[in-house]
Amino acid sequence: MSDHRVLLLAHGSSDPKWCQTFERLAAPSLASVPDSAIAYMELSEPSLDDEIARAAREGVSRITVLPLFLAAGRHLRKDVPAMLERLSSEHQVEITLAGPVGEHPLLGDAIRHIVEESLTGTPSH
Amino acid sequence: MSDHRVLLLAHGSSDPKWCQTFERLAAPSLASVPDSAIAYMELSEPSLDDEIARAAREGVSRITVLPLFLAAGRHLRKDVPAMLERLSSEHQVEITLAGPVGEHPLLGDAIRHIVEESLTGTPSH
Repeated sequence: MSDHRVLLLAHGSSDPKWCQTFERLAAPSLASVPDSAIAYMELSEPSLDDEIARAAREGVSRITVLPLFLAAGRHLRKDVPAMLERLSSEHQVEITLAGPVGEHPLLGDAIRHIVEESLTGTPSH
Repeated sequence: MSDHRVLLLAHGSSDPKWCQTFERLAAPSLASVPDSAIAYMELSEPSLDDEIARAAREGVSRITVLPLFLAAGRHLRKDVPAMLERLSSEHQVEITLAGPVGEHPLLGDAIRHIVEESLTGTPSH
């Protein structure tokens, strides 16, 4: 375990199949990034609260929260920053909130490949 | 205009910046796929209702709705199919609902690149 933990933040859903898809989506990142984990904002477990408390208990002093969201709306502009401010103070850890993955141009390109493939039924990559 | 239209379905948000990010994300797909447009499920315009009505008015007989969602939860399993059944019958158009882009393995790989790059601050691709 390092001094720095990466939490891949997902919204969460009351539908367990949503979380299964999400876990598959996050799997390559979790396999590649040391000391990383998934945390859900609401409705699913483990919650962001739980994962930040666990990191603090385990002696981690710096956490990067990386939202696996397509775009930043009210949740990422208001709710999550407020949650992180409270959790940072409560657990005495430094928390950085990164931009959502959907703001990176690479994601729009990947979506184009997937859309093309969905329509033709054959891999375009 | 062809007989087949592709609607890239987004959730929608009360935050206009969310829609701006979303439009940038969809731009490569819109540029590549002929006769395609964005439609929002709720909170943003143009709505799915508006875009399907427009397609029917313009003589399109087949519509593919392709969800730019990371995973299918309640919205994509229940709300959207119910909306599409109603709209298909109302406008006499054939509507196919594709799976969300997040179910494609290519998206998890793209997210891994973006996560790695966010953490190191240098492009990994």
